[in-house]
This record gives sequence, structure tokens and C-alpha cells, in this order.
Amino acid sequence: MDWAVVIAGGSGSRFWPLSSPTRPKQLLPLAGSRTTAQETLDRLQGLIPPSRTLVVTNAQLAPMMIAHLQLDPANVLIEPRSASTGPALIWATAEILKRDPSAAVLALHADWAIGDQAAFAATAETALFAARNHDRLVTVGIVPSRPETGYGYIVPGPPLGADARAVARFTEKPDAATALELIADGALWNSGLFAWTAPRLLAEVRAHTPEVAPHLIHLAEGNVAEFFASVTSITIDVGVLERSQAVAVVPGHFDWDDIGTWEALARVRSRDADGNVVVGPVTVFESRDCITWSDGTPVVVSGMRDAIVIAANDRVLVLNRSAAADLKRTLAALPPEVRDIS
Amino acid sequence: MDWAVVIAGGSGSRFWPLSSPTRPKQLLPLAGSRTTAQETLDRLQGLIPPSRTLVVTNAQLAPMMIAHLQLDPANVLIEPRSASTGPALIWATAEILKRDPSAAVLALHADWAIGDQAAFAATAETALFAARNHDRLVTVGIVPSRPETGYGYIVPGPPLGADARAVARFTEKPDAATALELIADGALWNSGLFAWTAPRLLAEVRAHTPEVAPHLIHLAEGNVAEFFASVTSITIDVGVLERSQAVAVVPGHFDWDDIGTWEALARVRSRDADGNVVVGPVTVFESRDCITWSDGTPVVVSGMRDAIVIAANDRVLVLNRSAAADLKRTLAALPPEVRDIS
Repeated sequence: MDWAVVIAGGSGSRFWPLSSPTRPKQLLPLAGSRTTAQETLDRLQGLIPPSRTLVVTNAQLAPMMIAHLQLDPANVLIEPRSASTGPALIWATAEILKRDPSAAVLALHADWAIGDQAAFAATAETALFAARNHDRLVTVGIVPSRPETGYGYIVPGPPLGADARAVARFTEKPDAATALELIADGALWNSGLFAWTAPRLLAEVRAHTPEVAPHLIHLAEGNVAEFFASVTSITIDVGVLERSQAVAVVPGHFDWDDIGTWEALARVRSRDADGNVVVGPVTVFESRDCITWSDGTPVVVSGMRDAIVIAANDRVLVLNRSAAADLKRTLAALPPEVRDIS
Repeated sequence: MDWAVVIAGGSGSRFWPLSSPTRPKQLLPLAGSRTTAQETLDRLQGLIPPSRTLVVTNAQLAPMMIAHLQLDPANVLIEPRSASTGPALIWATAEILKRDPSAAVLALHADWAIGDQAAFAATAETALFAARNHDRLVTVGIVPSRPETGYGYIVPGPPLGADARAVARFTEKPDAATALELIADGALWNSGLFAWTAPRLLAEVRAHTPEVAPHLIHLAEGNVAEFFASVTSITIDVGVLERSQAVAVVPGHFDWDDIGTWEALARVRSRDADGNVVVGPVTVFESRDCITWSDGTPVVVSGMRDAIVIAANDRVLVLNRSAAADLKRTLAALPPEVRDIS
């Protein structure tokens, strides 16, 4: 049977001051009127039922996630600590293997914006099929829409039948010139949307991931705390996919965005005739290409260009769009009583 | 004796959302840590005692003005309606004349920023002296520091002794090129700082101001309500000074600003090394020439230039400095529930 694992942790500093540790981006309606986590589960409808969908989150967020998404607590995996996507997905896959020895797993994140749901569903089915058909770890490579320097790229190799291709190599965050070359050569964005059979993933971990493999025994024994206490924090990409020979890529022809910064809202939200994104009680005059959001305080923006204006959680952020990527650095320099949102 | 009349009405929309009908700009600490009204009274210390200082305001503001400035209610004149500076100053002067037939009056506004208090005091004394000495209406002309198009200009005429000059003409709000020519020709800003003897002002009103003169009888009879119900709204400049031949100008060699817009704060407030004005809990990163003010909500500004960012009264305003002069028009277009601050 097909299962899904939804990664839904995250500290939520990228959408400060709207996001907070108790309300990270998957619990915010960033891309539409519903939260990105809700949209993620909606996206699985007709594809994988809730009974076969596991959500991985942390202890702080779990009660909110369960209530908000009406989850069966048995399908919520609470990480004892955050150790990146590697241990999370390996644990979830091992858990699925216990429940269903023939399982194939679709791995995705709870905080994405996806443009075309039908294309997403078709691609997910292709990826799951390819994972079984070729017995490989399958990554969905998104056809790039811009020379993004913040993403990893996948260079496809030879075809593996009609549905997938081998992977020639992975390339992490290139510079802009390299990104353009990669795109010209047919490289795809490494989205984090994966499919594998449970046995294949665990076999590849045993073969290539010494940071995790020796500790799988704790999962077999049901000792999750010991597993997380023992493993090294590592991404599934670096720890497994980039080391394995049994990988494949399926192209995804749909808009995909990980909504990494406020800047992303200009891509995933509708804009007015002047290119402004306006969410909440914001009045915009004679302004262009601004991104504005208020959670209640009336905001007036006039004569601005390329500004990000956010009023949320009793704080105000005014940022040039060119400075949006530096928000983390800006936050680090803030006094804690301003930065920390309870 | 010398008396002072302080004009302290005003609806207070220019500093929205910090200002409001119940807290217009004279009750805000715009230029420093004290309100402009308090600074105005401070400025008169040693020059004219509080017992000879009348404050003209409206019914809504009067209780606040009395409490805030610790005024004797007998020295507070409450206008039944706002009819511009003409009727206000004529009423106040007529009132002073009743109390002191030999009075000279210094007229000023409660919402100015003045750079050099000693120069202000010396100029005020010169203006009062010249008003008696030449028996003319004296206007203090500020030596311009920029080709301001929002002010009126005074072109001085021949000297009247060492202390004053006649007025060749008044010019209202010139365009920028004309302002430069006026400054090159020695024209001065018409500040609204005036001096006159009470009999001379009332004589000039009787001779030149049909909008007010026939109604002076109501003041003589103590019927202020009837006076304001009868007069036409008119400025003292247009209604009296520009029509009178008995005018003189005394130059003022001090920084004077009527703090007409948020933009003015860049002139009257100290700036950081990057030219930013920062008032209240605002953290500014890598920004230049911004004007920021918060009355409590933490504000973070990053990567901005020439932006005005105001968080006050549970509203946020983000304005390009080039759009600051249009604030009134922007406010007019706002929904009343956003615009109107209770």
C-alpha cells in the first residue's frame, strides 16, 4: 500500500513576526485561506488516505497539529529532538514498515505551495510507481521557473523506462551563473518530494549512512528516544540520496515553492494590478510590488516600491524585498524581548 | 505691557496615525522630549509671564491644554468654531486690549520647532519694540534655509530705522524656481510670528477687513459666540497684513519649522549616522534617511531608504518620504474606521 509522511516541524523564524515557535509557517495561511499544513493534507485526498498518512512534528507543535488537522494521534510521530530530515524520514519509514511490510512511502513537507494539484497527484503516483517498479529512491525534480540559488539541483541521467530517469548528480545551492547553466542542461530542483519502498530506504541507509544505520536497532526495539539521542543530525539528501546508487528522478511539471521567505508570497499569492500582495486590513496607495500582511492592525502603505510590510503579533516589520533573505541575520541582532514571540 | 497669544487649535491630521483630534501635534513631543505646546510656553519664559499669555484653542482640546500646560483657565480662549487665524488673533487682541489698553501683543503658534531659543527671544523683543516704535503690524521673517514651496514669503522694503524694514510685498507658496529667485532677492519666510499693539491691529482691521470689522461690536459686548457666528473664516495674513500699509518685517536668524508633515522630523530631530530619525522602540538595520516612530509596538526596519514608518494608536503607516506631502489626500481615501482615531 502507499503511505505518506508529512514533515511538519520547523521553528518558524522565516515569517517573523507572523510566525513564531508556537505557530510556524505550516500553521499559517501563507499561500491561501487555509494553512499550508491543511493544504498539504488536502493535496493527498484521493491519493493516500489519512489512515496511511503519518505526520512528523515536535512535542511543542503536536497538540496544535492534531487539533488543527484532526489527526489520529496514532499517526503523529513526535520527534524527541530535531535532527533534520534524515532521522525523521528514516524513523517514519521504519514505523510504516512495521505496519505494512509492502509499503511504498511518499515523503513531503507541510509548508509548500503547489500550483497544480492534478499535476502534483499524477506526479506523486508516478513517483510511487517508479519507486516500486525500479526499486529505487525516487526524488521528484521540479522543472525550474527561475535561476534560484537557494535550492539544490538534480542533473538527470539516462532514462529508466518511460517514467523515470537515473540521477547523474546532485548539486547544492549554485551561484546564479551556475544555476542558469544547470537549467540550460535540463537540471531540476530537488524539491524534497520523495518516494521509496520502505525496505529499499532502510537497505540504502544500512549501506551508506553510518550516522544513522547503527542506531536502527533502537527503532526495532521501539526506543525512539534512544534512536534520536544516538543519531547525527543529517538531511535525507546528504545522508542517503546523494550517497546511494539506487536513486531515480521523476520530473514534476507543476509550480512548487517551499515558501522560504516573505519574498515567496509574491510568487504564491495573487497580486493586484500594481503587483502588490495584500493580506489583511492593509490599504495600499500608489505602491508597486509590495508584500503586505496584517493580522489585525490597520496598515496604510503609500508611495512604496518593493517593500515588505508586516504587522503581526504586536510587532511591525518593514523590509526591502532585496533584504528579505537576510531576515534571519536581522532577527539574530534584535533584542530578545522584541524577537521572541510567545 | 507685552502680552503673548498662542494659537493652539488644529485638527491634527498631518501626523496621522500619531496625531488625532484629541491629540493634535501641539500635544505631541514631535521636536524633542516635551510637547511642542510645552516647548512654546518654555520659549516665552523670561520674555512674557504666563499671567499675560493667552492660549486660543477649541472646546475639545481646552481641558487637555489647561491640564497639560497648567494654564489659568482665565487665560484660555475657547473658539466656538475654527475660523482660521484672523478671527482668533483679533479676538485675543481685543481681549488683551480690555485688560491692558497699552498692550503690545506677540502672536505665535503652539506647534513650532525653534532652533535657537536665545535668538528667538531677542527677535521677539525686537519685534515687540518695533511694533510700538513704528506703530505697525510686525511680522518676523525667517531667513530661509531651503527653497520651501509650502510657505509664504515676504519681500522686505526700505529700512524703518535699524530694527525693521517696510514690506514690499507678500508672496504665497511659490513654485521651486520662484522660491529660489525670492531667496536670492532676500525674501524671508512668513512665519506667523507677529507683533503689534492692540490699538493698531484693531485699527487696521476696521480699515481693511470687512469680513470681521462689522462684527467687532460683538466682542465689545462680550458676545464671542455671535462674533464667531458672524465672521468669515480668514487668515490674519490675507485678512489684515497683506491689505495694510502699516506693516513691517523684522528678520529672524534662527531655525524655524512649523513641523507641517512627518518629513519635518528629519529637520527638527537628531538623526543617526545614516540619517535616520528613530523615536520609540524601533530597531533600524542597514537603512538610510528613514523617519521612524513607534508609540509602543516594536518596529523593525531593514534595508529601507527614504521611508517613513509610523506605528501609533494601533495603526501603521508606511510612506515614501516623497509621498509625505500627500498624506492628507491618502487619509481622505481611507475607510473612516481606519482613519478616525478615537
